[in-house]
Amino acid sequence: MEINIQTQIWEENDKIAEQMSKKWRAQGTFVFNLLGSPGAGKTTFLETTLDILKGKYRIGVIEGDLFTAQDAQRIEAKGIPAVQVNTSGGCHLDSGMIKDALERFDNPEFDLLIIENVGNLVCPAEFFLGEDAKVTLLSVTEGEDKPLKYPLIFKESSFIGITKSDLLPYLKYDLSKVEKDLRDLNPKGTIQKISSQTQEGMQEWIQWLTDQIDKKKSEPV
Amino acid sequence: MEINIQTQIWEENDKIAEQMSKKWRAQGTFVFNLLGSPGAGKTTFLETTLDILKGKYRIGVIEGDLFTAQDAQRIEAKGIPAVQVNTSGGCHLDSGMIKDALERFDNPEFDLLIIENVGNLVCPAEFFLGEDAKVTLLSVTEGEDKPLKYPLIFKESSFIGITKSDLLPYLKYDLSKVEKDLRDLNPKGTIQKISSQTQEGMQEWIQWLTDQIDKKKSEPV
Repeated sequence: MEINIQTQIWEENDKIAEQMSKKWRAQGTFVFNLLGSPGAGKTTFLETTLDILKGKYRIGVIEGDLFTAQDAQRIEAKGIPAVQVNTSGGCHLDSGMIKDALERFDNPEFDLLIIENVGNLVCPAEFFLGEDAKVTLLSVTEGEDKPLKYPLIFKESSFIGITKSDLLPYLKYDLSKVEKDLRDLNPKGTIQKISSQTQEGMQEWIQWLTDQIDKKKSEPV
Repeated sequence: MEINIQTQIWEENDKIAEQMSKKWRAQGTFVFNLLGSPGAGKTTFLETTLDILKGKYRIGVIEGDLFTAQDAQRIEAKGIPAVQVNTSGGCHLDSGMIKDALERFDNPEFDLLIIENVGNLVCPAEFFLGEDAKVTLLSVTEGEDKPLKYPLIFKESSFIGITKSDLLPYLKYDLSKVEKDLRDLNPKGTIQKISSQTQEGMQEWIQWLTDQIDKKKSEPV
């Protein structure tokens, strides 16, 4: 019985996600779902990204979190419209939450919509939100075993950022093993070392992102 | 309908957990549930703990993970009996899994049983496994906002280890804020800075743990 209900939940989720995906295609909005462990550096990465892209595109952010509104406040402080979605303890966002969140923007027509998911390497990977790409951050302080321990999320990501690379000199960390495991799981995705402190990799990330935004805008509906 | 099923799942979980708790009381086994984000340092902390306590107590370890058996192999390399439980993508252990895992030990009578849960700050906090204590690790690289973002797990923990303290010199991290937020959430629990690299806090942790083990052994059934 439990399995059937889970299947129903996924089917219902995917139906709404497909509707939104269609709408975003018509609007030319590129949407990415930002994933990673608690503390992988998602919000800081997002802040740096917004500092660079602000004024160049119409951007909106949906911030998923269990209880607090801290992250949306950090984004709004940048002058970017942000809507907070609280899951009240739930470990992931679903497409119904995103649909409701969109209605809370004054003007929800964006070139770029970013959805920062709940910090978690498991459940968020299982719920499609209608996004064009999953972007997953994995910090070097999390240890080398994470790609093989949480394969689904890394398999499904179009861009994987290996964050906090500025801490590598202070860690025992076999970066080449992590890169190899990620590549084995995901032969096509972009894998990039990132540091929000030193800005390592940010140029490559912004290049990747703007390519996606421009491509989406120019695609026929 | 979904909510009722969730309540049923919890009731069934708690029933089995209570049975095991009773059994462990009769055996004088102290049991802790080790929690934390992916990469908080749980398995390394466990390895260090086992190096110190090995030979002094009869110890068993249950390792929860989504797919791999890497962690159980790391524990068995220490000569400690370990059983791997794979959740096949599930984000937490439940008491039924622990009951089954116990049957896989040659001799499941321990002074100390350690259950390393799936790396996650959300779901594992919601499932009681019959343990005496929850021990939660939070690494300094995860950022200062985690206690308020994941309050349940920190509220329920008897011991909170702030790990990777050797990295503090290289981070912008307001330790006193984190300690204050933890203390506000959890006035009674022990909060301890820990480093598996420098051994900071390990003596205090081992003292706390052995006190619990000895107390449990001496308690009347």
